[in-house]
Amino acid sequence: MEFTRAVLAANREIFSFLQTADDSLFQDGGQVGFGGDKSLLIDLIAEKIFIKHLSGFGRINSEECGLTGSGRDEIVIDPIDGSSNAASGFPYYGTSVALKSDNKVAASVVCNMTNGEYFYKNSSGIYHRQLFDDRVLSVNREGVSSVGLFEKAYSFPREAKKLRKMGFKFRSPGALALSLAYAHSVRFVVAAGKLREYDIIAGLHLCEDLNVFVSERLIIISREKTVFDRLKAGFTKEVR
Amino acid sequence: MEFTRAVLAANREIFSFLQTADDSLFQDGGQVGFGGDKSLLIDLIAEKIFIKHLSGFGRINSEECGLTGSGRDEIVIDPIDGSSNAASGFPYYGTSVALKSDNKVAASVVCNMTNGEYFYKNSSGIYHRQLFDDRVLSVNREGVSSVGLFEKAYSFPREAKKLRKMGFKFRSPGALALSLAYAHSVRFVVAAGKLREYDIIAGLHLCEDLNVFVSERLIIISREKTVFDRLKAGFTKEVR
Repeated sequence: MEFTRAVLAANREIFSFLQTADDSLFQDGGQVGFGGDKSLLIDLIAEKIFIKHLSGFGRINSEECGLTGSGRDEIVIDPIDGSSNAASGFPYYGTSVALKSDNKVAASVVCNMTNGEYFYKNSSGIYHRQLFDDRVLSVNREGVSSVGLFEKAYSFPREAKKLRKMGFKFRSPGALALSLAYAHSVRFVVAAGKLREYDIIAGLHLCEDLNVFVSERLIIISREKTVFDRLKAGFTKEVR
Repeated sequence: MEFTRAVLAANREIFSFLQTADDSLFQDGGQVGFGGDKSLLIDLIAEKIFIKHLSGFGRINSEECGLTGSGRDEIVIDPIDGSSNAASGFPYYGTSVALKSDNKVAASVVCNMTNGEYFYKNSSGIYHRQLFDDRVLSVNREGVSSVGLFEKAYSFPREAKKLRKMGFKFRSPGALALSLAYAHSVRFVVAAGKLREYDIIAGLHLCEDLNVFVSERLIIISREKTVFDRLKAGFTKEVR
């Protein structure tokens, strides 16, 4: 599909750029993005690269610049998901792109910018590959994955404690779109707190075949129904 | 240095092996390691590869098999640091190797097995490179890194909450040796709870030029003295 190819080309350009990035790129970009966070220079550069590759496919709705361009379809982008991690040299950050057509997501791509793994889904299926050699990766881990991801666990210490008591081991890595993309392999993904379309639209599209709960301030996903039900019970009605 | 070259050769072999690993390798290996955790098959295979490459340099003290071989020097190995992450398809795990000579660490190598970044230190200095093309990586991030790492934060909810209140953003990624290796770039590293030699010896050796506090159940590291002092104050005497 032409759109997916263009997203991958943009991702390759951003990936290569990041390989040679020096610390100055992680300085404050001098503006607050539409998502409400401060933009770093690297966010703005990644956004420009996406716009260059994707503006032919529709209007762009991006975390840093808001809505730009025109077209029937809308492309929702988080240029760097987990920019604070990138700025800190902590290797867990990526990019997230979704194509909305007739108000439904038609295609999505989430790419890990530290190792080139990417996940994409379109009308023909869901794929997990390597950005540079296009090698097919097959991480399933059903029956062996023991660890889940709980994004923003620290804003929910009561729930975090409860899940631990229930025997759920989890990590808090700090890049939401990326964590949603890993939901097929890890035991579960929970995200709580402020959830913005930029961060979640592509990731949720990738997860449609799993057990998914979404409210305004909470996402719970697991391929295992029993895990999913127990996690949901761990959250107070207030949070749900 | 011949030893470092041998460690890197072992890491390359393990890395390549992991690329083709299917889910069966993440099954229970049928034994409890000397470190007290259940060994996965992949832990045992990685250990074998290290022993093959390193047994000529001294006796091996490894998390899975304990002490083996003979020699004046001792090589302390965590074959897979963060095996649960690996088993769950969560891309944050590595390997950790330290060479002890006359009861002092003479060389150490920590390698990120998800992207090939490695850190090593010997008598000639500390290095950060890429496993396959040996490209020099220069992650410093001084002045831009905003995120720290707090390993096992969930066993210390009171302290975790306190640090958050003090304005410290952190991630909990679940591979201790690897997190110590990233201490030069992230804002700080805190590890609390059971600390075993296998997990920390190489990482701590890499951090000797930073501000470091180590007790039986707590490690605090930061390149920034003010951050370091404030973090220490965040922990109760009991934990320290």
